[in-house]
Amino acid sequence: MSKNAAQIKVGLIGTQFMGKAHSNAYMKLPHFFDLSANPVLQAVCGRNEANLNKLKNQFNWVGGETNWQNLVNRKDIDLIDISTPNDLHYPIAIEGAKNGKHLLCEKPMALNTDEAFSMYEAAEKAGVVHMMIFNYRFVPAIALLKKMISEGKIGEIRHFNAVYYQDWLVDPEFPYLWRHDSKTSGSGAHGDMNAHIIDLARFLVGEFEAVNGEQKTYIKDRKKPDGSGFGKVTTDDATAFMARFQNGAMGSFLATRMATGRKNFLRFELFGSEGAAVFNLERMNELQYFSREDEGDIQGYRTILVTETSQPFIDAWWPPGHIIGWEHTFIHQFKILMEGISKKEKVSPDFYDGFRCQQVLDAVEHSAKSEKWEKIEPVDRIK
Amino acid sequence: MSKNAAQIKVGLIGTQFMGKAHSNAYMKLPHFFDLSANPVLQAVCGRNEANLNKLKNQFNWVGGETNWQNLVNRKDIDLIDISTPNDLHYPIAIEGAKNGKHLLCEKPMALNTDEAFSMYEAAEKAGVVHMMIFNYRFVPAIALLKKMISEGKIGEIRHFNAVYYQDWLVDPEFPYLWRHDSKTSGSGAHGDMNAHIIDLARFLVGEFEAVNGEQKTYIKDRKKPDGSGFGKVTTDDATAFMARFQNGAMGSFLATRMATGRKNFLRFELFGSEGAAVFNLERMNELQYFSREDEGDIQGYRTILVTETSQPFIDAWWPPGHIIGWEHTFIHQFKILMEGISKKEKVSPDFYDGFRCQQVLDAVEHSAKSEKWEKIEPVDRIK
Amino acid sequence: MSKNAAQIKVGLIGTQFMGKAHSNAYMKLPHFFDLSANPVLQAVCGRNEANLNKLKNQFNWVGGETNWQNLVNRKDIDLIDISTPNDLHYPIAIEGAKNGKHLLCEKPMALNTDEAFSMYEAAEKAGVVHMMIFNYRFVPAIALLKKMISEGKIGEIRHFNAVYYQDWLVDPEFPYLWRHDSKTSGSGAHGDMNAHIIDLARFLVGEFEAVNGEQKTYIKDRKKPDGSGFGKVTTDDATAFMARFQNGAMGSFLATRMATGRKNFLRFELFGSEGAAVFNLERMNELQYFSREDEGDIQGYRTILVTETSQPFIDAWWPPGHIIGWEHTFIHQFKILMEGISKKEKVSPDFYDGFRCQQVLDAVEHSAKSEKWEKIEPVDRIK
Amino acid sequence: MSKNAAQIKVGLIGTQFMGKAHSNAYMKLPHFFDLSANPVLQAVCGRNEANLNKLKNQFNWVGGETNWQNLVNRKDIDLIDISTPNDLHYPIAIEGAKNGKHLLCEKPMALNTDEAFSMYEAAEKAGVVHMMIFNYRFVPAIALLKKMISEGKIGEIRHFNAVYYQDWLVDPEFPYLWRHDSKTSGSGAHGDMNAHIIDLARFLVGEFEAVNGEQKTYIKDRKKPDGSGFGKVTTDDATAFMARFQNGAMGSFLATRMATGRKNFLRFELFGSEGAAVFNLERMNELQYFSREDEGDIQGYRTILVTETSQPFIDAWWPPGHIIGWEHTFIHQFKILMEGISKKEKVSPDFYDGFRCQQVLDAVEHSAKSEKWEKIEPVDRIK
Repeated sequence: MSKNAAQIKVGLIGTQFMGKAHSNAYMKLPHFFDLSANPVLQAVCGRNEANLNKLKNQFNWVGGETNWQNLVNRKDIDLIDISTPNDLHYPIAIEGAKNGKHLLCEKPMALNTDEAFSMYEAAEKAGVVHMMIFNYRFVPAIALLKKMISEGKIGEIRHFNAVYYQDWLVDPEFPYLWRHDSKTSGSGAHGDMNAHIIDLARFLVGEFEAVNGEQKTYIKDRKKPDGSGFGKVTTDDATAFMARFQNGAMGSFLATRMATGRKNFLRFELFGSEGAAVFNLERMNELQYFSREDEGDIQGYRTILVTETSQPFIDAWWPPGHIIGWEHTFIHQFKILMEGISKKEKVSPDFYDGFRCQQVLDAVEHSAKSEKWEKIEPVDRIK
Repeated sequence: MSKNAAQIKVGLIGTQFMGKAHSNAYMKLPHFFDLSANPVLQAVCGRNEANLNKLKNQFNWVGGETNWQNLVNRKDIDLIDISTPNDLHYPIAIEGAKNGKHLLCEKPMALNTDEAFSMYEAAEKAGVVHMMIFNYRFVPAIALLKKMISEGKIGEIRHFNAVYYQDWLVDPEFPYLWRHDSKTSGSGAHGDMNAHIIDLARFLVGEFEAVNGEQKTYIKDRKKPDGSGFGKVTTDDATAFMARFQNGAMGSFLATRMATGRKNFLRFELFGSEGAAVFNLERMNELQYFSREDEGDIQGYRTILVTETSQPFIDAWWPPGHIIGWEHTFIHQFKILMEGISKKEKVSPDFYDGFRCQQVLDAVEHSAKSEKWEKIEPVDRIK
Repeated sequence: MSKNAAQIKVGLIGTQFMGKAHSNAYMKLPHFFDLSANPVLQAVCGRNEANLNKLKNQFNWVGGETNWQNLVNRKDIDLIDISTPNDLHYPIAIEGAKNGKHLLCEKPMALNTDEAFSMYEAAEKAGVVHMMIFNYRFVPAIALLKKMISEGKIGEIRHFNAVYYQDWLVDPEFPYLWRHDSKTSGSGAHGDMNAHIIDLARFLVGEFEAVNGEQKTYIKDRKKPDGSGFGKVTTDDATAFMARFQNGAMGSFLATRMATGRKNFLRFELFGSEGAAVFNLERMNELQYFSREDEGDIQGYRTILVTETSQPFIDAWWPPGHIIGWEHTFIHQFKILMEGISKKEKVSPDFYDGFRCQQVLDAVEHSAKSEKWEKIEPVDRIK
Repeated sequence: MSKNAAQIKVGLIGTQFMGKAHSNAYMKLPHFFDLSANPVLQAVCGRNEANLNKLKNQFNWVGGETNWQNLVNRKDIDLIDISTPNDLHYPIAIEGAKNGKHLLCEKPMALNTDEAFSMYEAAEKAGVVHMMIFNYRFVPAIALLKKMISEGKIGEIRHFNAVYYQDWLVDPEFPYLWRHDSKTSGSGAHGDMNAHIIDLARFLVGEFEAVNGEQKTYIKDRKKPDGSGFGKVTTDDATAFMARFQNGAMGSFLATRMATGRKNFLRFELFGSEGAAVFNLERMNELQYFSREDEGDIQGYRTILVTETSQPFIDAWWPPGHIIGWEHTFIHQFKILMEGISKKEKVSPDFYDGFRCQQVLDAVEHSAKSEKWEKIEPVDRIK
């Protein structure tokens, strides 16, 4: 923990799963990385006071707010961390940018492409640092693969096949939540889970050209937790799509919460002219890699245990073979963010990436309705 | 080997990979299963005399023919085994049916749905036993899964995701073959490989309702082996499609010969309301199975090593843990065929299954051109 | 983080790998578990000032000491955490007990059984809480297995086969360290790595009756890092042994730093009359389990992903499928320690466990010299 | 099948599991390998007429005998295949050698080292070709590993850890068989299963120097199948041992029929100064290989799918990825045997290898009684 580091005062909005994961990451970050600026857990914000106080106490947040407008207007906040339900990302980001706050936003970025672009534009105009949470880019195994791709180890990519499997909606007794209402969440498995694998595809393969999708809700009514009958599920349990990439690769994608027995199984298989790779988030410390350069008789997929000091982010942690957990991905991402804010430099992935991801999400939804391929309009970064 | 068994005289057309696999199966079959009728390796047929003689000698076929018409007209042949390039399936089957021969046909059944239906119709009219080679139905692990599905262990099926990965076309130096010419082979990876996973889907999930596909040829010209320059590749290196099943399940399919590092990797993942299963042909003695019935705290995918006497087909072979190979699938299938012919009973999968598979294959091709979902017309069995 | 919790002021001795791992655990613990007493990072102690200051700053330790005697005499310290080289465990523990400090000690406990027993006796006489760091008992998958064993799911245990594989000594250029000198470290792979799997055996199977071992140093001289020539390696690169347990189970054990390609691969296989289990530390979120109770046809080893809220320790962390890392094991263990100190109750594993483990370690060394089976003398807990 | 090949007339003694496996191999061999001499299934011999006739008919053996002395004296037999219970190996081999028959013997070779040496000596004096069935040397993955070791890819071997796990004796209701009586079978798991992994160790690592073992019978009485009460089990359910190799490697071995959930799980792990390998018989088409030569950042165990034409024995079979089964190992071994007999050349592994393996088996049994390390006396081949 660097004593001479500047301070970046964080205002976190959202007290649930992501609120907890982010709090942990802010807390741990300066203990493992020497930064030019350290995060300060300045204020956390949530509508539900019980939840708010729980998280505030759990991580020693200095202050608390129940109204995000208040938070966004506070002078003592440098960075707004938007970890709310999806419908609030847009108003908070716009207001935050207006107030000159740096912005960190959970995925999916917005309820639609227009919102996402406006957020991107607002952040750019405000000159603030903006970042999208696509934390799986910061899994060491995936960061290593990115490096290998840059070095030509995979060659021209032909296929990117990704699935994101969870199973918590298989149980018909699982209750009706905000996530089942398209008004608050925009979509179901699609926005929540496909957002991750779409971003990984953009990171590893390149931009999408067109998509063709299919959405499905298997269980159409679920019991409300308050006993007031059933709620109508207006979000997707599963969304699949095919993709064409600008560089000629073919893609297939599936996010589903109906994948019985799979808990958080994000797998991609990437095939190139020189090599191939397979990754599975449930074994996130491992990368499977095949090289056509290996001696002919003894080729095979090798399991790289990505826990070596020379591998991305690992030197902050433990000796070889001592695995890290899911939570570490946020710490890695927040390191990049703190350095960016401190040095007033752009970071990656940013709101442009969030917007581009949102375009794909939206195009998939349109294609599911139009039953046709939908193009992803190329939009350049704002200069 | 039953001494009192009747004899079924086989005429095999095709001397390549499948000719060899089938010859082995005919030879081994009566040594491991007690049948009411045993196959006799009566005559093998191939245009290339060197190849013909090689296979004839290798497996002690009684006779040889270089012209399939001759073979189909021979009185001493009971069963015609059609293991030729795909464009010959139709004329041979039609002629064989005309001559009252029982018919066994390699997949894909035909160059198109019309041909396939005519073959089915001809075989039915002729009253012969007809069977399609979909040998993966006879992998013990898959036969076991079929039984588990019938017993309700999987429940209502929501997802069937299948890939068939090979990599022999990744090498740009791989030469131009008949398989690269749509006139002789109909299609590339699609007919050859998707035919298998389409059939498994029909076997395990049920009938298709509609499909939406995409086809791609990555390397468009390949050197002719005779040194006469390049041949234009008119078949697909890869074909992907999404599917809707009549029972509401979603499907995703991909066959590709560009899956660097994968040799014969056919994997499917099947998710249901009560359980789930995963299979991979490269580990074909294993079935992964998840049951929601297992005690809550200790659920997980289990690896069933399908080598127990009580499991399908295994009691003919070796004690538990002594694995069988790919070639055994044909022996299992041929057992069913011999019994069917002997007892003059219909067998499964038959030409109806071949035709229904061909419908799906064709619909995928059409959708790849139309860029729309294509329906699979429901066609009942001929009564 | 419980605001009303009492405070337990920790004095940590040792600034290397374990110093860092423990510091992280003290820091994180109160943020994830509601405790009746929270640890305070009061003072850290190390001989090397640079290392001391680095760790002190990294984790915001309140104070620092370069002399452990000073630390042990400080009034403001409740708990002494002994994470030093092995030769210092004994004097520190004895002095700590004398001063009425609670004691936490890294494995292996001591340089020999006599030291270990004296430490146990001293701690008991002083009436302090004492705990041995055997953090792998606190891997959720292993804690779950312990529960399953108690419930009878494994039955009478017949085999416990454990290996601990690392490969950092395969490189002949790896330099000479204190770990290569038996005077400071007692032993090499044996004390460091076999201590873990011996403890897991005692935890899961029961007490040892006799052992029969073999030790080996493959590379006998290594370059000193200061350039002053070669140091003679007087510790083992590898130690293997067979074991007899009091309950009739057979055991096999191997710890080696010459396991090329293995980084921190601790695997055990446990076979019982009713079930079996396999665990591998490099995939520590998973437990393989086989039950003879499963339906006959479809038995198999299942992979339990131990990330469910209902599984040990997990409800403090993340939703299903979001894996935790190696570092979390310390947090779980420290939770038990804090509660023990707060409630003035004995904790497990304690110095008795350390002593019993040391007996086995010593007996293995003796047997390697005597080339005979060596008995483990049964010694009861001090009443 | 080579038409000009000479004929080698086989007399097989034994009609059970191995009788069936060998019959299949003799039958298939000439169809897949071009040999200078083909086996003829001339006569099979068994005491139980029903079993004899079953196997005779199953594989079309020309003749049958119920008395092995008759068979060994028949003029029309070139090769005696000894697949009987273990106590008959010695008398048959001696008598066979006396009659100038070539000899093939199942493992374990004999009831003790003296018998084994006499058998070796007799075969050498008679000038016949003699071979031991150690069929796992002929698994393509293991043959490939042997080649890799010769090429230096593994380097100096430090560890060879092998287990052979089965579970058919876990069931206390499993009946009393000849295999439970040390008079007929010599030993239990030890001779049957350790013989395999001892031979693999000699094949891959080199000669043994000394061993130190432990044997155990968990269930001491089993019901006789004829209902005449209980039989006393005088063979081992499990035998473990440590080994020292002449080249300095350490070994650990365990054969057990009490490995709940494991069916035919033979795994070895081999660690060397340059590389490492892992093999598991239940996935016998795969070899795990780690190379220290791989680029630093991206090292890992790779899974070689040993189904490539360029890999040992595979070009006789199927295209890449089409796996072979357990039974194929005999076909590969018999190929070597037929060529040896045809060319009057020594083959490997031969009776010397059987004898050397028997020495190790016996030394382990002695050490289990003496509770000391037992040396393996170096004995050279007869010149």
